[in-house]
Amino acid sequence: MNHIRNIYSSIPVDIPKELIQDVLITGSFKIERIVSKGHSSPEGFWYDQDQNEWVILLKGGAGLLFEGTDDILELKPGDYVNIPAHLKHRVEWTDPDTETVWVAVMY
Amino acid sequence: MNHIRNIYSSIPVDIPKELIQDVLITGSFKIERIVSKGHSSPEGFWYDQDQNEWVILLKGGAGLLFEGTDDILELKPGDYVNIPAHLKHRVEWTDPDTETVWVAVMY
Repeated sequence: MNHIRNIYSSIPVDIPKELIQDVLITGSFKIERIVSKGHSSPEGFWYDQDQNEWVILLKGGAGLLFEGTDDILELKPGDYVNIPAHLKHRVEWTDPDTETVWVAVMY
Repeated sequence: MNHIRNIYSSIPVDIPKELIQDVLITGSFKIERIVSKGHSSPEGFWYDQDQNEWVILLKGGAGLLFEGTDDILELKPGDYVNIPAHLKHRVEWTDPDTETVWVAVMY
């Protein structure tokens, strides 16, 4: 039968580093749950991914920076963005006081 | 540059029928936003889809019924389910008092 799961369930109390878990794996894309709590990309680090990423923030908050821009884009619940492969970006901040939960589709 | 959109934005006040909008179209899958408000599948109607569907309920509430079972599964915010192609199912109810917002990945 079909199993219903909840994207907010089974979040550990302590999240020493960002938590990335597979939700669905197919031949052409993967859905991940990402949980952050105050995490940010290390100084000077940029994500430079081989895959495209469509990502939605469901809970919490975060600041994203894209290469070539100066403005940190603030994401609040429900905000989503499509990040083409190799568009360099970094997470400047995530909410330190609550879990930030993302669903990412890597394709 | 990269556009941030919000999954809860631009929802019409009146939703005479369920609203289905493309969020992202790729060669191998499509992401849709679905907004319901008290809608349900017509009496005797079953979805029988050629594609698989991974769907998450973000806001509101709904009751899903899968063929061969008697129990209506209640979905609350954050609940997700993967529905294989041709697994017949129907929406028994959605919250009449608030918008129910889903994100579906059809693949």
